[in-house]
Amino acid sequence: MSQTNGAVLVLSGPSGAGKSSLIKKIEHDIGSYYFSISTTTRPMRKGETDGVEYYFVDEAEFKKDIEEDMFLEYALVHGNYYGTSLKPVKQALEEGKLVLFDIDVQGNSAITNRLGDITTSVFISPPTLSELKNRLTNRSTDTQEVIERRLKMARLEIQRVSEYDFLIINDSLETAAKQLLQIAHVARLKKPLDQINDFVYKWENLEN
Amino acid sequence: MSQTNGAVLVLSGPSGAGKSSLIKKIEHDIGSYYFSISTTTRPMRKGETDGVEYYFVDEAEFKKDIEEDMFLEYALVHGNYYGTSLKPVKQALEEGKLVLFDIDVQGNSAITNRLGDITTSVFISPPTLSELKNRLTNRSTDTQEVIERRLKMARLEIQRVSEYDFLIINDSLETAAKQLLQIAHVARLKKPLDQINDFVYKWENLEN
Repeated sequence: MSQTNGAVLVLSGPSGAGKSSLIKKIEHDIGSYYFSISTTTRPMRKGETDGVEYYFVDEAEFKKDIEEDMFLEYALVHGNYYGTSLKPVKQALEEGKLVLFDIDVQGNSAITNRLGDITTSVFISPPTLSELKNRLTNRSTDTQEVIERRLKMARLEIQRVSEYDFLIINDSLETAAKQLLQIAHVARLKKPLDQINDFVYKWENLEN
Repeated sequence: MSQTNGAVLVLSGPSGAGKSSLIKKIEHDIGSYYFSISTTTRPMRKGETDGVEYYFVDEAEFKKDIEEDMFLEYALVHGNYYGTSLKPVKQALEEGKLVLFDIDVQGNSAITNRLGDITTSVFISPPTLSELKNRLTNRSTDTQEVIERRLKMARLEIQRVSEYDFLIINDSLETAAKQLLQIAHVARLKKPLDQINDFVYKWENLEN
């Protein structure tokens, strides 16, 4: 059995938890990985590039892909579709890569259902709601209305922390990054169920 | 929330898989730990010491402890009782230690049921049945009859590998020890459910 099978690392947590900073901090140390890019029907914003922030498609195309079961998971949020296409994930896994997801609790639940045997999930949280409020206000990229919506969403998401394998409280970026890196290394040790079954079969039937 | 809560690391695998050698190799690097010692009614053998290999008790005492719910798990094997007393495990967890178990698949199942939120389980396997046969024969501590029984047990246990979080194939001791050490570090990041709930509660209600 190969020691370098692909595996999945799901990161969830409120906008403002520091997921992007954490990923940036560890990405050079986690080995070969693929960062999953979602597909969406929401309009491209100024400064965004197709294939970087998202794959931008129209609703007809998205619905066709739903019908053809091309999504690992998808959801309708505020009138826009968001989804994860199966094909690049499968390819990355076959290449033995660690597939990283930055996805919400619904998305984690869907991915764990489909790929549970090779999935490790981490919820990244700011230490407190007031700290999150500060961070969102200080980065001043969002309107007050958007901040309020993000805080409301954060309160709902944090209720489901126990669905995750790990909770990282991002109080110190250094400590949080070290923990996430350790988890990422160990995530790669998860073996797909078909490899496990293959191993069990061979264990009894070959070389004896 | 403390970063140094206790956690559980279960190691299973056939006699001859190399669990003891692996533990010896990593024990100085895993930080503060407690190696769980089982209690048994089987007679003490020459060279064994009470409180080292096992806590040796008589059947009356064992049955009294069963009645008083003092065991995390117990089983009757070949006419002898074996069990894990709850008390030292609870104490070690409260001291923030990593509690190591060398236990069979039944034991793992019982521990996971009771302490699943803080338990990481690892099945350690020799690469093949013939390799296991060689190892057991070469160490020449067991009679042919005992070896046959161990091999039969190994074939049954390996069928349940998929119940474990990780499978380590102990082909190279160096590689296997490195993997186990990584898993042991990450096992400590698992937080008990009551701490998670406490965090969620405080997150919303304090400092805001």
